[in-house]
Amino acid sequence: MNAYTFTPIATIRTPYPQKFGIARQSTLVPAAYGVIELNPKFSTNAIRGLDGFDYLWVQFIFHQTIDEGFSELVRPPRLGGKIKQGVFATRSPHRPNAIGLSLVKIDKIEYDKQIKIHISGVDFLDGTPVLDIKPYLPHIESKPLAKGGFTENRRSVLNVLWAKDFRLPEHIKTLIEQTIAQDPRPAHQHTLPKEFVFDIAGYTVRFICEDNTATITSVQISEQLFRQSCGLTDKF
Amino acid sequence: MNAYTFTPIATIRTPYPQKFGIARQSTLVPAAYGVIELNPKFSTNAIRGLDGFDYLWVQFIFHQTIDEGFSELVRPPRLGGKIKQGVFATRSPHRPNAIGLSLVKIDKIEYDKQIKIHISGVDFLDGTPVLDIKPYLPHIESKPLAKGGFTENRRSVLNVLWAKDFRLPEHIKTLIEQTIAQDPRPAHQHTLPKEFVFDIAGYTVRFICEDNTATITSVQISEQLFRQSCGLTDKF
Repeated sequence: MNAYTFTPIATIRTPYPQKFGIARQSTLVPAAYGVIELNPKFSTNAIRGLDGFDYLWVQFIFHQTIDEGFSELVRPPRLGGKIKQGVFATRSPHRPNAIGLSLVKIDKIEYDKQIKIHISGVDFLDGTPVLDIKPYLPHIESKPLAKGGFTENRRSVLNVLWAKDFRLPEHIKTLIEQTIAQDPRPAHQHTLPKEFVFDIAGYTVRFICEDNTATITSVQISEQLFRQSCGLTDKF
Repeated sequence: MNAYTFTPIATIRTPYPQKFGIARQSTLVPAAYGVIELNPKFSTNAIRGLDGFDYLWVQFIFHQTIDEGFSELVRPPRLGGKIKQGVFATRSPHRPNAIGLSLVKIDKIEYDKQIKIHISGVDFLDGTPVLDIKPYLPHIESKPLAKGGFTENRRSVLNVLWAKDFRLPEHIKTLIEQTIAQDPRPAHQHTLPKEFVFDIAGYTVRFICEDNTATITSVQISEQLFRQSCGLTDKF
């Protein structure tokens, strides 16, 4: 079969510099904010009418794992990492073609030298290359009664506690809480009595888990320039 | 930005050898049947668990128009072909990266030398190359209350009459009726008193339109080998 070559149309800035902490699907962490920075070659014409839609499809590259190749069988976190499913029956990044698909909320569109689409509910690594964006069509793509296969299993959600008041901006608190509530731990580490550390929105966050409760023990500024560099100054 | 190269994982066989007649979105013509023929290098492992889902996302190549390039502004048929919208606010095939996204129903999965996924509600040209398939996640991707921008405009649907009984198999009749009811005419030809001709599922169909009614005047077998060659013998 013919091969096809594509050049990304945009890059996404998100609070997630590493995989740990990223929600397993989009929309699960509504506070997870991001910005799609369109290639400056596109004028505002290219997005005319987009502000009439609530949600956006993002077709993107799993750029950090693309070189790892794929497996026909993968272990979805939803099934506790123990049961194998076919890669085409999952949304695993380790696919024959490392292309992702995520539904995100359109919050605001900024028209400047470069078009910036502010979105939320993201599940992207910071710096993710975007192949295409398309409007969500509710009359076609909303199928509330559809069978969801293995994803119908109940998700485990953690209670999140703060060991003390870290004096964070409210939206950062919410982002950290929602992120940890989704239980970012790898399935095989659920029973380990260890501390987890990850970076989010320019902060380094530590938490410990006991049973179904996560306690946040430390939050430190990790990357002072994060907020400016990614153009999220007013949000984070 | 880096370019990325992908090789299709599958080809889709559909009743549509040309663009005319293909529904403007997937699922609008439930009788539009197709088969995703997976590259034989994939074993049944690759689709384990897929039979638990009702719907499938297909990320595909607009292979017949990819060389025509893109426009920042396009004229969606939904708006009568008169009003321009930004390409990223539409599902137009003339995109910077000619990648499509369609939701289809999973009817049956055939496990033989090659995996064949029988689907319906297709809006693909016959021979469409597929980059990826993914399960539809109703708990994430069903947003019935989302705003649908310009696509909230009422669709025009045609009444379909048969000039005589053409003694067709029932499913072919249904397919032709549903296809014409969607009004396949180009927007600028809505007022012309002409006859339209198109091929579908191995038949050549002619119809005329007056006001909101289409009358099918002729149905002839156009491609006797169609049904065998595309492996749809039992369906068409």
